Amino acid sequence: MEFKEKIKAAFMAAQSRICAALEQEDGKGVFSQEHWQHLSGGGGLTRVIQDGNVLEKGGVNFSAVEGDIPTFMKKHVSAEATRFFATGISIVLHPSSPMIPITHMNVRYFETDGGDAWFGGGIDLTPIYVNEEDGVYFHQKLKDTCDRFNPAFYPKFKPWADDYFFIEHREETRGIGGIFYDYIRPDEDNTRDVMLEFALAQTEIFAEMYVHFMAKHKHEVYTEEQKKWQLIRRGRYVEFNLVYDRGTKFGLETKGRIESILMSLPEHASWHYQHEPMAGSPEWQTIQKLKKGINWVK
Amino acid sequence: MEFKEKIKAAFMAAQSRICAALEQEDGKGVFSQEHWQHLSGGGGLTRVIQDGNVLEKGGVNFSAVEGDIPTFMKKHVSAEATRFFATGISIVLHPSSPMIPITHMNVRYFETDGGDAWFGGGIDLTPIYVNEEDGVYFHQKLKDTCDRFNPAFYPKFKPWADDYFFIEHREETRGIGGIFYDYIRPDEDNTRDVMLEFALAQTEIFAEMYVHFMAKHKHEVYTEEQKKWQLIRRGRYVEFNLVYDRGTKFGLETKGRIESILMSLPEHASWHYQHEPMAGSPEWQTIQKLKKGINWVK
Repeated sequence: MEFKEKIKAAFMAAQSRICAALEQEDGKGVFSQEHWQHLSGGGGLTRVIQDGNVLEKGGVNFSAVEGDIPTFMKKHVSAEATRFFATGISIVLHPSSPMIPITHMNVRYFETDGGDAWFGGGIDLTPIYVNEEDGVYFHQKLKDTCDRFNPAFYPKFKPWADDYFFIEHREETRGIGGIFYDYIRPDEDNTRDVMLEFALAQTEIFAEMYVHFMAKHKHEVYTEEQKKWQLIRRGRYVEFNLVYDRGTKFGLETKGRIESILMSLPEHASWHYQHEPMAGSPEWQTIQKLKKGINWVK
Repeated sequence: MEFKEKIKAAFMAAQSRICAALEQEDGKGVFSQEHWQHLSGGGGLTRVIQDGNVLEKGGVNFSAVEGDIPTFMKKHVSAEATRFFATGISIVLHPSSPMIPITHMNVRYFETDGGDAWFGGGIDLTPIYVNEEDGVYFHQKLKDTCDRFNPAFYPKFKPWADDYFFIEHREETRGIGGIFYDYIRPDEDNTRDVMLEFALAQTEIFAEMYVHFMAKHKHEVYTEEQKKWQLIRRGRYVEFNLVYDRGTKFGLETKGRIESILMSLPEHASWHYQHEPMAGSPEWQTIQKLKKGINWVK
């Protein structure tokens, strides 16, 4: 089987597994399914959950698109390349409860008819209230998974996430980071098949970790004030996604399916002029953790 | 008096008048005042109203900033220019009631030490439900004001607003448009003083028109469904401001005061996956009016 077909099949299967795991833990919400075609060729399957017990809104998108190389991509590919193929899974989950973090996962593969090929991806966590134990668990799990493939990955991909998931104009990270990588071209050590296995390993721990967070926090009670703080943090999430997120930009610039691209936006978000948490409050403590370079794994 | 000082004083006075008119009609909300300095020189006065009777959140910002010409501006100015001066008023008002439109006004003046000078500005209206009578009143008032200065203005500035206040990825206008203009260099017909008078005339009709809309619609009752629709339309407003708005981009790129730049974002906004109003409903009818090229003035 051609690699393109192999990775598409593997990603589609991973999408199903993740949705099934999330539905089971949610206990109420069911993912919708929308198949769509891209203008330039190929298409995808968008799956969205709304109004669940735990998940207020969540999207798990699979796509496999091909087409002529867009102008803004030309500097990244070989001179002979004329056509591209891109496939990936992209996930954002917005739980109702402020006690459960927002999360995001992406794995993707890109190739051209000019011989280019690379992988990208990442997982990051955006807690409304930073929980030390959760942060350590999350980063340890990411590190362990990276280490199984290449001990150089976590030390490289963790700071990469700090730099990428950064809201420049606020001078704060989107959350407590995770891993991020892009333009990883397969080589003798990290072959295409190994990199695909690495991507699939991410999809597995992603589901495992998030189901763990859902189960751990879904019965915790919260106040109206905590809900307000969540809406403000979601506002920051919107700022990141619309101003900086490369996937969103790529989607908008290549005239992708808007509802699939913007499924990452929360059902409700808020902006309050000059909202400043009181020094020492849990909200203030959270902001102190929205910095680059924090080592969660000791 | 130097023109810079004259326009600054005139804009500051206009800011005060607008805030006073809005406070009076609101009957409860009071504008805060924050003076701020810009990194590169100069500064501004941000005035924000929150939790009023009518205005849920509104910002009326004055700024007068100077500094070295930023790289991305160089293509617009003469080769000798090294320093710029920019002053303006920028307003966005988000009422609580979905029966009252969102509105925006901006007037601005830019000059360099290389002899460049130009004016820009605009007023546009974003109804949650398009009201024909309001649309005609709004555009007629804009046209009358433009005509007092130059009969060529409205026919030029109205389609410019249609093109500018356009959410490309949704293929819909932000609202029912209004007027927009930029890079209008003073000449013999439209001298600096005439263009300043034109800007001030806008600040006057802006207050008059919006107070009219507040008074006309503030006692109308509305349903929960109408409120939901408002939150979704506000989500579109956020999309426009974060993805396309030049003022926001300029502010973020020149490291302006974030809370002043993003005061344009609503207190609450919403995104619902695949929200599609029923054909024929008032929400659906509104979307039919979010198109370029509609002639409101007969």
